[in-house]
Amino acid sequence: MCETSNTNGAANGTNGASNGTANIGGDHQGANFRSNPYQPVGDFLSNVGRFKIIESTLREGEQFANAYFDTETKIKIAKALDDFGVDYIELTSPAASEQSRRDCEAICKLGLKAKILTHVRCDMRDAKIAVETGVDGLDVVIGTSSFLREHSHGKDMAYIEKTAIEVIEYIKSKGLEVRFSSEDSFRSDLVDLLSLYRAVDKVGVHRVGIADTVGCASPRQVYDLVRTLRGVVSCDIETHFHDDTGCSIANAYCALEAGATHIDTSVLGIGERNGITPLGGLMARMVVTSPEYVKGKYKLHKLKELEDLVAEAVEINTPFNNPITGFCAFTHKAGIHAKAILNNPSTYEILNPADFGLTRYVHFASRLTGWNAVKTRVGQLGLEMTDDQVKEVTAKIKALADVRPIAIDDADSIIRSFHLNLHEGPIETQSNGKAIHVEVRGDETTELATGA
Amino acid sequence: MCETSNTNGAANGTNGASNGTANIGGDHQGANFRSNPYQPVGDFLSNVGRFKIIESTLREGEQFANAYFDTETKIKIAKALDDFGVDYIELTSPAASEQSRRDCEAICKLGLKAKILTHVRCDMRDAKIAVETGVDGLDVVIGTSSFLREHSHGKDMAYIEKTAIEVIEYIKSKGLEVRFSSEDSFRSDLVDLLSLYRAVDKVGVHRVGIADTVGCASPRQVYDLVRTLRGVVSCDIETHFHDDTGCSIANAYCALEAGATHIDTSVLGIGERNGITPLGGLMARMVVTSPEYVKGKYKLHKLKELEDLVAEAVEINTPFNNPITGFCAFTHKAGIHAKAILNNPSTYEILNPADFGLTRYVHFASRLTGWNAVKTRVGQLGLEMTDDQVKEVTAKIKALADVRPIAIDDADSIIRSFHLNLHEGPIETQSNGKAIHVEVRGDETTELATGA
Repeated sequence: MCETSNTNGAANGTNGASNGTANIGGDHQGANFRSNPYQPVGDFLSNVGRFKIIESTLREGEQFANAYFDTETKIKIAKALDDFGVDYIELTSPAASEQSRRDCEAICKLGLKAKILTHVRCDMRDAKIAVETGVDGLDVVIGTSSFLREHSHGKDMAYIEKTAIEVIEYIKSKGLEVRFSSEDSFRSDLVDLLSLYRAVDKVGVHRVGIADTVGCASPRQVYDLVRTLRGVVSCDIETHFHDDTGCSIANAYCALEAGATHIDTSVLGIGERNGITPLGGLMARMVVTSPEYVKGKYKLHKLKELEDLVAEAVEINTPFNNPITGFCAFTHKAGIHAKAILNNPSTYEILNPADFGLTRYVHFASRLTGWNAVKTRVGQLGLEMTDDQVKEVTAKIKALADVRPIAIDDADSIIRSFHLNLHEGPIETQSNGKAIHVEVRGDETTELATGA
Repeated sequence: MCETSNTNGAANGTNGASNGTANIGGDHQGANFRSNPYQPVGDFLSNVGRFKIIESTLREGEQFANAYFDTETKIKIAKALDDFGVDYIELTSPAASEQSRRDCEAICKLGLKAKILTHVRCDMRDAKIAVETGVDGLDVVIGTSSFLREHSHGKDMAYIEKTAIEVIEYIKSKGLEVRFSSEDSFRSDLVDLLSLYRAVDKVGVHRVGIADTVGCASPRQVYDLVRTLRGVVSCDIETHFHDDTGCSIANAYCALEAGATHIDTSVLGIGERNGITPLGGLMARMVVTSPEYVKGKYKLHKLKELEDLVAEAVEINTPFNNPITGFCAFTHKAGIHAKAILNNPSTYEILNPADFGLTRYVHFASRLTGWNAVKTRVGQLGLEMTDDQVKEVTAKIKALADVRPIAIDDADSIIRSFHLNLHEGPIETQSNGKAIHVEVRGDETTELATGA
């Protein structure tokens, strides 16, 4: 069931550098990286080039403190996720409330391409309610850590295994897909966990799940556990990572390297506490590693729209530092960076903003600017200067930026005033006086008026 | 120079679970985790229990799109970082601008406990300006990737090595600490990199630096590269990770596991593009692994204040999902979570909010609530009900929450009305009618009025 050959990685010799910017100096990159041993070689265990997304904004995301999704919002989000290209959409258990049940039924009737799952406790009553909703499959969960066995449900491993098999066989008898997962897998006894998963694998469960419910796992722990499990079960392996210690994206990546097949995500990572692996952050990580697979499968240019939809629904702002869509994710400021970016964006970018329908900015109105960024701006203003003259005006811009924050139009004024003195005559201008960033998309250089 | 024995890990058998919540059921945790092979054993390479922080909010952070720090703000931030307990404070190059130079001098005169570094290009002119400022050390950097060699400075490896040695020897002759780092280490030729670092190690550089300048590295790549370098040089190893693909915290952790000694951070991760390893996120990761070291060394309860100071200075909001200080980092919502958290916070928390001077919330006014959370609330309201009665009123709360978002006072009204009907008399109340969250700190349960 789980094919683990990394076709993408093997075919392209992909690594952290063969990326979304491959259209710029792609051959050169390839030549460079072949000389670096720190790239994945053909790794038959790794699924970084062939993974599936179980999108849980409508389940895990509903557990986010601010989330209240009415039926209309749920449907809008489900359609947007389906359009983006996720493989599965996971919904809150229909046993949670009457409206949850009705919403589950409504989403099943939408006829989406994505498979619809619901997430239920390992309990026959919940399973029976769920199979009646029209879902394609059930994600069954029970806590296996001693914490949860003692403080939550109070059941022993023998009972868990017996119940698990009953529930799995019931769901399969209804012709539905079934996943069985522990909660808090990284604080569960390893031998108990492997015994349980081997037992459910034998009765034909479609996936087993590893869940870092408290967000304690570190990347190499994840690799080790998934790698071990990969040798024990033949079914697919789903993984679920909370972000309490900021490792949810990295842990998902290491799980795929170790042979996991499915990753749970939510839009912007919303979920219990500070949430889980964010869909957008995972896309950033995976498009760098497996550009063809990711760009061929997911509509990356719809990512921002999808994030905006969810952010509005739960009344949050996209974090300033969000991968890809954070407001400054493609803004370059230091002079040394700006110079190189203007020569070749791959120098300081591993992601190509154009892949996401976004643009990059080179910020030049600061004390950290360099003359190469200013030279580009001089050209955009339609002015002519020698390199020495550009260096002289750069010093003037840096001097003003030392005293107070300056907007782009301040910098433009300095450039124009300097140019005027050089030529003692009226100057041409293409600017309307608004603050302007230098925008560079691919090989083009254009201007964009912004509010500074 | 670099002692790599992980005293903390060895002494405590620490892992992802021996954490800030050790005061709650600590012995039990220990017993449980010893049975799980997925914990670090005594790993003499790992520095997860003895690392140093090079705090770069005033250098990398100044490259953040929104950052403009005047002298007063820089001093305020430097003092707050020093008070928090960081080992080093890194400042923008004094060669960047005249004000940068004066600010560097001013901060050196503050007499802070932290060592003051400045970050300069590998260029004798920059180094000469820097040594005059009174700093304790220089962080010297040059790009070694073929991208940067071609599109940025245009120099070959022989020239880089010669210049590096000159600059390092000059700085050492002035009695200062010196680090030498490549930029974009993960897209540099490995053999070039190791040759260069071996050469600078031989002339007595204090630290070499590995920098993921574009944010392309993945955790196991980091481990491999740092592990290899650890075998080549005897000096300390500093690491610097950008967050473009969301792995900056995980990469820092894996670097420490592989023998790195110093981690670069900035407050909230501010820096070029979407920034670098955030100080707070790193604290979250490390306090889980090495609670005694981290809690003994850093004033964790000052973290929020420090983040608020920087967020205000650069006009950003703390991300909703920020580790530790995100508004919902310690909020529990699903009924099954709330129940267990009320029994024992370790069930669904790997971090103890009290370590950071923060509190947890159990959210019970939603359709996902469970009767255990409601039972606690009933007790807080000073009411008495049987478990069956609590289950009945829980159903009523879930029914209302199904129809519209409800505040805590809505839930309280339902509980009171239900109780009134039971007893047909006036009810006691401790609430002032404002929305109230259930707040649980350690073993105490108190109330906190909030705006819902």
